[in-house]
Amino acid sequence: MLTLYDYLDSGNGYKVRLLLAQLGRPCERIELDIDRGETRTPDFLAINPNGRIPALVLDDGRPLAESNAILCYLAEGTPFLPADPYERALVMQWLFFEQYSHEPYIAVARYLLRHLPADHPRRARLPELRERGHQALAVMEGHLAGNAFFVGGRYSIADIALYAYTHVAADGGYDLSGYPALGAWLQRIAAQPGHRGLFDLAEG
Amino acid sequence: MLTLYDYLDSGNGYKVRLLLAQLGRPCERIELDIDRGETRTPDFLAINPNGRIPALVLDDGRPLAESNAILCYLAEGTPFLPADPYERALVMQWLFFEQYSHEPYIAVARYLLRHLPADHPRRARLPELRERGHQALAVMEGHLAGNAFFVGGRYSIADIALYAYTHVAADGGYDLSGYPALGAWLQRIAAQPGHRGLFDLAEG
Repeated sequence: MLTLYDYLDSGNGYKVRLLLAQLGRPCERIELDIDRGETRTPDFLAINPNGRIPALVLDDGRPLAESNAILCYLAEGTPFLPADPYERALVMQWLFFEQYSHEPYIAVARYLLRHLPADHPRRARLPELRERGHQALAVMEGHLAGNAFFVGGRYSIADIALYAYTHVAADGGYDLSGYPALGAWLQRIAAQPGHRGLFDLAEG
Repeated sequence: MLTLYDYLDSGNGYKVRLLLAQLGRPCERIELDIDRGETRTPDFLAINPNGRIPALVLDDGRPLAESNAILCYLAEGTPFLPADPYERALVMQWLFFEQYSHEPYIAVARYLLRHLPADHPRRARLPELRERGHQALAVMEGHLAGNAFFVGGRYSIADIALYAYTHVAADGGYDLSGYPALGAWLQRIAAQPGHRGLFDLAEG
C-alpha cells in the first residue's frame, strides 16, 4: 500500500490525490498540519529532508518527494503520461512551468490570504504576486485558446498539475473572468472520469 | 541541428550547454539579452510564450522550453538519466527541488547583485532570499554527506541541474565554506569527462 503524507488544503497534495483516484490506486493518507510544524519533525524530515508535503512512501518503504515528481512516477506507463518522447517533454515543460512560474504566485497568494493574519508583513508581496500570477494565467489562456488540453490533445498530468491551484485561484484574489479559454478548460478537467474536488476524500 | 536560445550568464542555459557538450551533440546557439527585452519579442514568444531562455528548437522546428524539461528530453536513453523507475523519479524529485527550493533563492540573489543597481528596491528581498537559499544548501549538504552524487551513485542530470547555480552561488553572496560535502561534490562534478565552465563556449 502506498502512503501519502499530505495536507488537505494543499493543491500540491491534491494533485497526487486526484491522480491516485483516477488511477484507482488506494493509498493510506497521513495528514500533517503545515501550520503546526508537523512537516519539520525528525520523523518527517527522514522521509523528506526538505520538510514539505506531499511525500509518497512506496510499498517497500522508499520515499519520494515533490508533487510533480510523484505525478511522473505514478503516471508512467498509463494514459496520463504520453509515451511519445516530444509529448513527454512537453508534459515536463508544463510541470516545470507550474512549479516555477505559476505555483509561487497563484498558490502563495492563496496561502497568504488563508493562513496569515491580515496585518502580516508577508502580505506586502501580494501586488507583486498578483502581477506574476496573471502573467502565468495569460500564458495558459494563450495555449488553451488553441488547445483543449495542455499536451497532445488529451488529459494528462500536465492538466492535473495546473488545475490544482488554478481552480482555487479565486482564494488568492485572482479574478478568472478575463480568461475564457481557461474557464472552459477548468470545466473540461472537472468533467473527467473519476474527478474529485480538493476536499473530497471519498473512496475513488 | 538543434538550436538553443540562450543567455551566456544564465545557469539555466548553462545546464543545457553542459549536457549537450557531454553528450557530444552540436547545436546552433542564439544569444538573447534578457536585460534588453530580447526574450519578449513576438518572434521569441512564438517559441516560448513564457518569454524565458533557455528554449530548444528541434531539427524539425518543434520548440521545447524549461531548462529541466530540456535536460530530461536530451538525456532520455543516455547514462545521464537512469532507466530504473525509482531512480528516474528521484532525478525528477531533485529537478523540481532545484526549480522550486533552490533556483528562486540562489539564482535570483545572484541576478539581483549582478544585474540590478545597488539601490534597486528588489534588493530588499536579499535577506529573505539568503535564508531560503541556505535552507536549500543545507538539504543538499545533508544528502551529499552520504552520497557522492544526487541519484544512484552516478552523475546524472540531477547533478547538472543543481551544479549550475550552486557553483556560482558566491556571486549571490553565499559563503559555501560551511558545506564541506557540497564543496567536494562541486569538485567531483567539475572533474567529469567533457565538463565545461559557465562561460566556456569552446567546441566540445
